[in-house]
Amino acid sequence: MIPVIGYAANQAKAQLTPYTFERRDPKEYDVLIDIKYCGICHTDIHQVNDEWGGSTYPMVPGHEIVGIVSKTGNKVTKYKIGDRVGVGCFVDSCRTCTPCKNELEQYCANGMVTTYNGVEKDGTTTQGGYSSRITVDENYVLKIPDNIPLDKAAPLLCAGITLYSPLKHWQVGPGKKIAIIGLGGLGHMGVKIAHALGAEVTVLSHSLRKLQDGKKMGADHFYATSDHETFEKLQGYFDVIISTVSSDFDLNQFLNLLTLDGTMVQVGLPEKETTMSFASLIGNRRSLAGSLIGGIKETQEMLNFCSKNDIASDIEIIPIQQVGEAYKRILNSDVRYRFVIDMKSLQQ
Amino acid sequence: MIPVIGYAANQAKAQLTPYTFERRDPKEYDVLIDIKYCGICHTDIHQVNDEWGGSTYPMVPGHEIVGIVSKTGNKVTKYKIGDRVGVGCFVDSCRTCTPCKNELEQYCANGMVTTYNGVEKDGTTTQGGYSSRITVDENYVLKIPDNIPLDKAAPLLCAGITLYSPLKHWQVGPGKKIAIIGLGGLGHMGVKIAHALGAEVTVLSHSLRKLQDGKKMGADHFYATSDHETFEKLQGYFDVIISTVSSDFDLNQFLNLLTLDGTMVQVGLPEKETTMSFASLIGNRRSLAGSLIGGIKETQEMLNFCSKNDIASDIEIIPIQQVGEAYKRILNSDVRYRFVIDMKSLQQ
Repeated sequence: MIPVIGYAANQAKAQLTPYTFERRDPKEYDVLIDIKYCGICHTDIHQVNDEWGGSTYPMVPGHEIVGIVSKTGNKVTKYKIGDRVGVGCFVDSCRTCTPCKNELEQYCANGMVTTYNGVEKDGTTTQGGYSSRITVDENYVLKIPDNIPLDKAAPLLCAGITLYSPLKHWQVGPGKKIAIIGLGGLGHMGVKIAHALGAEVTVLSHSLRKLQDGKKMGADHFYATSDHETFEKLQGYFDVIISTVSSDFDLNQFLNLLTLDGTMVQVGLPEKETTMSFASLIGNRRSLAGSLIGGIKETQEMLNFCSKNDIASDIEIIPIQQVGEAYKRILNSDVRYRFVIDMKSLQQ
Repeated sequence: MIPVIGYAANQAKAQLTPYTFERRDPKEYDVLIDIKYCGICHTDIHQVNDEWGGSTYPMVPGHEIVGIVSKTGNKVTKYKIGDRVGVGCFVDSCRTCTPCKNELEQYCANGMVTTYNGVEKDGTTTQGGYSSRITVDENYVLKIPDNIPLDKAAPLLCAGITLYSPLKHWQVGPGKKIAIIGLGGLGHMGVKIAHALGAEVTVLSHSLRKLQDGKKMGADHFYATSDHETFEKLQGYFDVIISTVSSDFDLNQFLNLLTLDGTMVQVGLPEKETTMSFASLIGNRRSLAGSLIGGIKETQEMLNFCSKNDIASDIEIIPIQQVGEAYKRILNSDVRYRFVIDMKSLQQ
């Protein structure tokens, strides 16, 4: 077994504290990765606090993992020692259901094995990327293109693909008017990717505080949702709206901003149920949809797209000892735009 | 002006009573239609009772109109005296907006002119089909194919197109599994049309009371939604679900019956707002959409499709004097499957 050091929550809502545990030795198709950086996703906070139910402890969070391959199983062909690699939200799936066969492992009919707070096929509880090393099957490992700095690549593994997948699925590109609700870790990736795809991009943010940042990322327009005029002015305007908001919000107000046959895609998961009126959907044949990260093939496609278009995440690097403070700042929307933990700090 | 007799509500929730009024003389592009039959749509009840707001009185309801052309304006080219024709939910639209230009007049950006409880471009309040005659622009009139009996054709003008349009838009056909929620006026048309389109059709009805009818209409399967096992058994099964329900229902329960990338389309408009959880949409990239009747071109296409596939509505014919009782029976889901008023009864 491989000794690993990390940070874990020992119970729901607990502060993360140092934790030592073991990973499996690489099996024939496994690679062992020395983790260099791990992004902090809002999901980590939801799971640590057991806000979605089903959390198990001790829990080492983290599913925006980048590092260097340090060992490979004897049948590994995709990676070699020294390769720059990443691991996202899942480390395995059934591989036999229709979604898996269609490279949509994130929708695995038997449930993907999540990178942490999940259970491997052998019954082991998975532990995430706030740690020194991880063993993962090569088929669930991504190659990080050379021109993307490792630290800035980490958030692509969840935030990046979470936005890339719906933007591609709903065919966002030249001639399309697209809105991103919320300019946070997810939203800022959405602006960059949608802009690179050639769409007209509008940010709908609570206030105009991040306007300059948004424009720099590629937003053509920027509106405050705290201003009621925004909802009058933009009525029927957008072909696609991607909502990254996971707090409660007035869904009907946003649906009304869609054009005929427009689609609003929810990628953030609000804790509570939402109230909606069907009138807005029926009157303009609008759709409300959801989307969940992306499959391995599409995640690699996204990384290559980011490489080609010089896209990476805007990050604040922190030592792992500051993760508690980072969680508080995330809950106050006070991060520009993603915290990334430097795993060197684990040695301190 | 053309003298007309009909039945009207003089105020919200009032019983319908005899009412005489006038229609315009046919202008150059108008046809005058002697109304033979008019279907009773649940919308008529909503509007008479002002349940959606904005109702004006006196109101002559009715937007499933069939009859015979008795006079034509001097520039009319599409119809001649004696033609069997129909009028659906609208009698005009702006004709200049993008939806109108794309033959989606039902989504007219400036608001279609509804067949009743609407306002014509000249400021006249429109009055519907519970009446002896109606004057309509030929471009908003449908041709009823010879092999569809007029009385059974009436409900196609609203119920038929309301189901045909989403079934076509969401590409229901061979190899697709489709569910229709509610076997009423709308739902029974959905079963017949989806079956003729070659899909596997399942009815989700409150009870199994209408099972035999459903099978005769072309349903492959029939489940009771009052039975909780239905929702376990059919989880993830359907590519498309069309909900004709306009009463309150548990939306999440039905969303869970959709497969990956499946779409649920709401065509009934519940009075109240609905509660939903995004988890069901996100976890399987599902969509929830709405759809509203159909454009003139598509309505004609639907009529021709019904003609070719020997489809018509299952109806109960009533004299107009029984409209109040019919409304009560509709509210009790006690009609198989659409009431159609025989306008000969106006002379009694």
